[in-house]
This record gives sequence, C-alpha cells and structure tokens, in this order.
Amino acid sequence: MNRACRLTFGDLIREHRRSYPDAIALVDGEVRLTWPELDERTNRLADALTGAGVGPGDRILWLGQNSFRIWELLGAAAKIGAMVCPGYWRWAAPEMAYAIEDFDPRVIVWQDEEIGDTVAKARAELGSEHRALWLRHDDEGAESYEAFLASGSPENPQIDVDPDSALLVIYTAAITGRQSGSMLSHRNLLAMGASAAWMGDIGQETAFLGAGPMFHIGNYQFWGIPAFVHGGKNVVVRRVIAEELLPVLAAERCTHAYLMPPTIAQLVALNREAGHDLSQLRASVAAPVWEGMVPTDTSRFTRNGGGEGRGYGQTEVTGFAVTGAYGGTGTGNAGRPGLFTSVRILDSGGRECETGEAGEICVRGDLVHLGYWNRPEINEERFRFDWWHTTDLGRREADGTISFLGTTTRMLKSAAENIFPAEVENCIESHPAVKEAAVIGVPNERWAQDVKAVVVLRDGAEATAEDIIEHCRARIASYKKPKTVEFIDALPRTGGYAKDYEALDARFGGGGYPGGDTLGAGR
Amino acid sequence: MNRACRLTFGDLIREHRRSYPDAIALVDGEVRLTWPELDERTNRLADALTGAGVGPGDRILWLGQNSFRIWELLGAAAKIGAMVCPGYWRWAAPEMAYAIEDFDPRVIVWQDEEIGDTVAKARAELGSEHRALWLRHDDEGAESYEAFLASGSPENPQIDVDPDSALLVIYTAAITGRQSGSMLSHRNLLAMGASAAWMGDIGQETAFLGAGPMFHIGNYQFWGIPAFVHGGKNVVVRRVIAEELLPVLAAERCTHAYLMPPTIAQLVALNREAGHDLSQLRASVAAPVWEGMVPTDTSRFTRNGGGEGRGYGQTEVTGFAVTGAYGGTGTGNAGRPGLFTSVRILDSGGRECETGEAGEICVRGDLVHLGYWNRPEINEERFRFDWWHTTDLGRREADGTISFLGTTTRMLKSAAENIFPAEVENCIESHPAVKEAAVIGVPNERWAQDVKAVVVLRDGAEATAEDIIEHCRARIASYKKPKTVEFIDALPRTGGYAKDYEALDARFGGGGYPGGDTLGAGR
Repeated sequence: MNRACRLTFGDLIREHRRSYPDAIALVDGEVRLTWPELDERTNRLADALTGAGVGPGDRILWLGQNSFRIWELLGAAAKIGAMVCPGYWRWAAPEMAYAIEDFDPRVIVWQDEEIGDTVAKARAELGSEHRALWLRHDDEGAESYEAFLASGSPENPQIDVDPDSALLVIYTAAITGRQSGSMLSHRNLLAMGASAAWMGDIGQETAFLGAGPMFHIGNYQFWGIPAFVHGGKNVVVRRVIAEELLPVLAAERCTHAYLMPPTIAQLVALNREAGHDLSQLRASVAAPVWEGMVPTDTSRFTRNGGGEGRGYGQTEVTGFAVTGAYGGTGTGNAGRPGLFTSVRILDSGGRECETGEAGEICVRGDLVHLGYWNRPEINEERFRFDWWHTTDLGRREADGTISFLGTTTRMLKSAAENIFPAEVENCIESHPAVKEAAVIGVPNERWAQDVKAVVVLRDGAEATAEDIIEHCRARIASYKKPKTVEFIDALPRTGGYAKDYEALDARFGGGGYPGGDTLGAGR
Repeated sequence: MNRACRLTFGDLIREHRRSYPDAIALVDGEVRLTWPELDERTNRLADALTGAGVGPGDRILWLGQNSFRIWELLGAAAKIGAMVCPGYWRWAAPEMAYAIEDFDPRVIVWQDEEIGDTVAKARAELGSEHRALWLRHDDEGAESYEAFLASGSPENPQIDVDPDSALLVIYTAAITGRQSGSMLSHRNLLAMGASAAWMGDIGQETAFLGAGPMFHIGNYQFWGIPAFVHGGKNVVVRRVIAEELLPVLAAERCTHAYLMPPTIAQLVALNREAGHDLSQLRASVAAPVWEGMVPTDTSRFTRNGGGEGRGYGQTEVTGFAVTGAYGGTGTGNAGRPGLFTSVRILDSGGRECETGEAGEICVRGDLVHLGYWNRPEINEERFRFDWWHTTDLGRREADGTISFLGTTTRMLKSAAENIFPAEVENCIESHPAVKEAAVIGVPNERWAQDVKAVVVLRDGAEATAEDIIEHCRARIASYKKPKTVEFIDALPRTGGYAKDYEALDARFGGGGYPGGDTLGAGR
C-alpha cells in the first residue's frame, strides 16, 4: 500500500513536533518534555536500538513501574517497527523469568527501585542462555537507559514501518489461563485514540494524569492515548501515593485522571485539608466518588455511564470496544459497538445468534489486536470464521444494545449441549427474590453433567428450588435450567471479588467439566 | 492482513442494522429507510450488480441530482468492492460523454427529470461502442433502478473487500486542469468520518440535511459521512429550493444542515413568516448568516472558525485535513493537521521548508486518496517522495499552524528559480496600504521572466512602487520581489471571483510562462 496513505504511531510525534512546537508532551517528576524534545529523544533512542540490533518485529521489555520512558520506548519502537511490552512490575521472579523467555526481548529496560531484587532473581533463574541487552532506567551510569539514549543520533530514522505491525504488547492471563502477550498495532492505537477522544471529548488541551498501571489497557484508553494522538499532555506518576498526587494534579492543571475509586476517596479526604486548586479537573471515570469536589465531565462517555463501567472490552480489542457512548444507554449493560467496530454474537458453529439469545461476543475491526505473541494455535482458534472470539458470553438485545453476561471459559456439558454458567446465572439473578447465583456442574454418568444452581436470596425474600427452575424454564432453553438448587447465605469469593467456583465445587460435588476435573476451560 | 482486523464501509451498514434496528438511516421525500431496510436494499443491489458483471474495481456512474440512491449505491458497491462516482448533474453533454469514456462504467444510473435531454445527447455522442447498463432511477419500469434492485437477493453477499480499495470517486478539475476522478477508499471515508465527528460533535442523534451537492466532498464531510458512520440520519434533497427545505428541516428535526450562505439568508427571510420549528437545528457552517434564528453549535469545529473556512483541504485528502479544531486557532489561516494526518511543507526537491518559508503543502495519512482514476503518470508525480503533493502553496507558522497561500499551479520562472505568484501576492497584501495584488510574469530574454505586481491600494492609502518592492525585499527571497509595479483601481475577476490573470497578462504584457504562453501550469 502507498506509504503516503498511511500513518504510524511514530508519525504522530513527528507531526506534533511541528504542530505544537512549545507544548508539553510528557511530565514525570522533574522531567518535562516538549513535543520537539520527545521527537528528538525518540529519534536518539530509535537509532541506539537499531545499533543494538533491534529491527522490525524485535521486542523490548520494560520491567519497572510507570515512567515517561515507556512512552519514549513506544515512540522509538514505532519509528523502527519494533514492539514494546510494559511488564507487570508486581510479577514474582518466576513470572518475570517466564515473560522474558516467552517474549524473548533483545532489550530489557529495568528499574532498581522497589523491584531490583526481583529482577536480579529472575535474571539468575534465566541463566546465561538469554542474552538480552539490560539497561537500567533509574540510573545515569554506563549501562543506563539515559546513556544508551544519548549515544543515538538525533536524526529522524528513515525506516518504512507498517501501521498494521505490532507496537504495544500487553500480557494478560484473563483469557488464556497463562500469561500471553496481546499484540496491539499502530492502527489499533490510533483508531482507539480517535474513538476514545470522541467519547471523552479529549483534545490538545487535555492534561491527563496517568496514575493507572501502564501494563493495563485502561490507563491508555482513559485517557493516555487519546491525549497523545491529539497532542495533549500525559503526566506520569511512578505509582499511586495519594499524598503525592494532589500537588501534581494541581500544578499540571490536569483535566483528566485515571484513578481507582479508593484513591479518589483518599484524595477527596486529603484535599478537604490541603485545598489544592483542582478547578481544571473533570471527573470522568468513577465520577460519583469525587463527592462533588470536582465537576463531572459532560462527555458522551460519562453521560452514558462509561465511568461506571457501562461498556465491554478486553485488551485484545484495545479496551472498551462497546460502550454507552454510542447511541446512548439502553437495555443491554454494555451499550453498542463504536467506531471501527463490528460485533456479532456467534454460536459455536459460527452462526449468528438470534436477538435475545446468548452466544460468544465476537469482534471485527480496527480495534482487534493482531493476536498473541508466540501463540499460533490459540490465534488460529480465536480468529476462526474471520471474527475475533472474545471467549465472553453476550447477547444482542431487541434495542440493539449488547449485554455482557460473563465468560464462556467456564462451560458445562449436558449430553451434547454446551452450557455456559454465566448465562444461567444471569437468568436466575433476574428473579426478583434472588440476590446472586452461581452455577456449577455435577457429574452424571449418562449426561456428563447436571446443572446445579447455588442461590443467595435477598434479605426477607422467599423462593423455592422449583420457583427458580420454573423461572429458568420460561426464559432459556430447557436443557440449560438447573436440575437442583441449593440455597446459601453468601457466595464464597476469591480475593473478595470473583465467585469461587472451586470452593463451590468442593462443597456441592461439582466436577466432570469438559476441560478437566474442576473448572472447564475447553470448548 | 487478517480480515477480522479491518472494517469496510459496507460493514457499517451491517453493524447499524443490528445496533439501531428501528432508527432511520435515510430520508428522501416520501422514502424513509431504517438501517435494516438499507442493509437489505444494499444487499439486493449488490447482488443485482454482481449479476450484471460488476466486480471488484468495477465502476458505477451516477448521472442525476442528489438522491438517497447515491448512498445505496455506495453501500452496495462497498459490499462488492466496486466504485461509485456521483457525476456532476450540471455537466454539459460533451463533459458527460467525456466522464463516461474516462470512467468507463459498467453501470450508469441516470435521471430523466431536468437532465434527461443532456443525458440523451451524451449517449448519442458516445455511439454504440460504449456498452454500459443504463438504469433510470426516477422511474419504476423494466429498465429502472428499482426494478434492477428488486431482482437481487436480500442475502448478505460474502465478498472479502479490501478497506484500502476505492469506493467513492469524485471528479475534480481544480488541480489537474481537466476533470479527473479522485478515488477515495473505504478507509479514507471512515477516518474522515471519525475525525469530522470529533470536530463537529456528531453522533447517532445527528439528523443531517444534505442539501449540498453529492458530487462534492463538502456535503459528505459536513456532515453526511460522520452521521453515517455513527448510525445517524441523512436527509437528502434533490436540489436546493429554499421553500421546500424549511418543512423538511422542521419535520425531520434536523440538527445539522449543509447550506450555502445565500440559501441560509433565504431561509431566514422565509421563516420569519412561516415560523417553522427549527429548535433542533444548530448552525455550524456559515453560522453568522442565521442571524440568531438558530443557536450556533458549540462544537470544536464551529468554535474555531471551521464554519467560516478556517481550514485547508481538497477532495484528494478527503476534504478539510487541516482545521482550527485541532489545537485551536493561531497565526495560520488554516489551523493544524488533524487525526490521521501529517503535513509537510516541501520544496521542489522534497526537502522540508523552514518554519515561515513557503512551499508546497504535502500530506500523508489515512485521509490521502488513492490517486486519480486512470491517471498513472499524474499519480506518480503527485505521490513523489512518498507524500501527496497538493499543488497548493503553504507555510508552517512559528506556532505550528499552517497558512494556505494559494496555488502552485501558477508559476513564474526567473533564471533557474521557480516563483509562485501566490507567495508574492501574499507578501504584498501584508503591506498596510494594499487592498489586493496580483502577480504576473513578463517575458525577459535573458532571465525568462520578470516579476510584475499589479496592485490595488486601500481607499485613501498611499504607497509607491518602491515601497512595495522594499516591503517584499525585507520579507521574501530577493529573486521573488517584483521588478515592476502597476497600480489599478480594481483587479479583473473571472465570474466575479478568481483573479483574471489572462486579462492582466493581456493588459500588462504578461507571457513566457514555463508551462506555455499564458498561465504557467507546469513545474
């Protein structure tokens, strides 16, 4: 394809250097880089990387906390066609070693502060076979990132990069069960940036405090990348320390911030005393937690419940690909697919489900990632029928909105039929007497498994097992309805969050899942 | 590239059918089509076209006024990889015949009302050699568009279409001197739609009255395509008759409309009597002409002067690729490049000009068209150095904004130097005493041409030829300054608009241009 008709992530920096010659692109502690400075530093870094043998398709691993240098690495890698993975700094040494072996990076940039010991252990585990170039980023010595960058030429590298090549790699275990690196292309990031900027009313005037983890897509989408594509300012903090965030929010006149609700609550409490000027800030994600201390922003995203999670996405579709911002809220809990996105609810044979019928959420479009690094078999499976299979269960409602129902990776088998617990739980939880429900499979010699529901009733409400079963019979295919129902006071939860199916299996005789003895992960 | 990672214009319709099952996509007189209806009709049309031998890369020509059927043809062509050209219905018969020969369409959809005679003449001129399938759209008979469409299957055609293939072709003579068809791809239209929707705050709730000509990119960008990509409503009118527009604006509760200032003035006058409810409408393009009858919209585009023309574009970059919406207004008259767009000001050797120095505006990115249909030599020339060369003269200002200075297609030659009249005129017109100026070349045997300025002074202002020459000497390269200056009362204008250089050449001895005896069109 004609090179003049396409744009890369690196071209953004080249352009912003010219369009916004005095504007700040990145802030991190004492570091403040204008767009021309960022362009020059990424040129130097790109040249140094090329000198170190890093070429198209080669990989760079970051082992550290948040830093402006992750943005620099993305910019430099973009200019030479390489990929960058911001690793999870809380990884234990064996996980780190696994990521290094799996990702096989030519360059590893690491941080000594807080995680130096873990990095050293991981390095020791690897032995001498792995020969990456190690650069320490929180240092200025000979083997530091800064010395390496300074060794490169400031000239713009003349390398033709394909916008459909991988740039940002994010490891996720949510779907595959083991950590796999989702490869996001230049085009994925540009399309997501354009789409999210529309939703969030993000522009060059945006100053975003990226306090979320840079190994997670959320921080990039809300609102790091949209600000970046528009030439706005990204303010990076190494990690979240509420006391340190307030002065940064005020001094940088941040308009947006990625903060978890507990942190927001801390900030609200602290600022009642401190009285920092947050007059530029608008609450978008988790707006109510601000308790009115800053105005709620008026963007389509926030107006339509995006900040409270009305949306559906995963790393593999570059974050939220479905939100309430598109066409407004409706019946479904996730809204509608946005720009550059098609969604189909498919059955296991690749046929589209009827409206109101549950099936796998499948996605197509410019937000769909390139696949997982180094997982050809999984990629082939997940891209079957030319649709990206999310492994999540959903439903198209009559008004066109989409409901996210849960994961398809837990599956029961009754005779030849696949049954997704999420769908049955969703149905049971629509009974007015039910507070929450979990569905497990118990072995049945003839039919493989029977469906068992474990139900928690609302305070003071009453319902019998037969009520629950009848409720399901009227609403979902008969083979999906529970055969037996158990009532308990509260569902066990892992880490206080996800339903603990292993505990439920142990207590109520679950087993015989198609993927193995306990949780079913197969299809 | 993986099919799951890309989206076509046809996929938009397939998706909106599901996301907005009850919403109206198109309105045209009595015709009102929901998204599911549009999806089905474009399926039928796609199938009928396939049956008529239209395949990927084949061409369909529209010879009629505005109609919802142009949108249908775009949708159907998108689903089979064909191209659609909405011809200019005011073409004379020879121009129409030229377009048919040049575009070589397999199918021609024509209109009898108002232009039937011209079409018949063009058809007679072509003789029997050209064997397109002719379909009349304002008819229901056997050879009508409607009968043809009804013959196709409503099933979704399973054809893999490349989003980087041509879809919409718009003939323009602005640059090439003769009519040439600029080929816009699916990706061009989707990227433009996303970008313009951000600028104009366009969403699914948008109801756009497309009263502008559908052979012009303006109507598509402001705001036909942005509304279409978001699942909004496009209201089409055959041609502009002010009396007929008012009830449509009111009945369809239009939020946006593409109207020329004289039409707006007519509407304002008419509605003082008629009192139609225009409470949904927001003025975006040419907002002041509404004289407060409808509120000015608050989008970034309108806030930053887009509606008054603060922007730069051409069909070949899918409309305005540079506007004040990006980063706000500044020194330059055109603003800054937007999403998916890079701009460089290049000299004739492909080197970037310094800030403040004039050169050719060159563009790269997802908005750059695929080239002109059937013009391989021009395309090669215009895509040199991997940048699309607009043939327009511009300057990057110190604040990063871009100034559009005029066209480079008029060029003088002094010794070995190329001189663009637009640049010199721009410099002269910055003199406080000057109202307007035109620059011509007069033959000089030794130096090819001398620069002559023809200047109109402001009422009551005074300046000598030497003042003008000195003013230029201080601001632009010395070889560009006028050697002689003539003062006149008013510049001759062609059609009351463009400076009439031929008249000026005749009166002041212009000639010897590098491209020929009169106007220089060469490089």
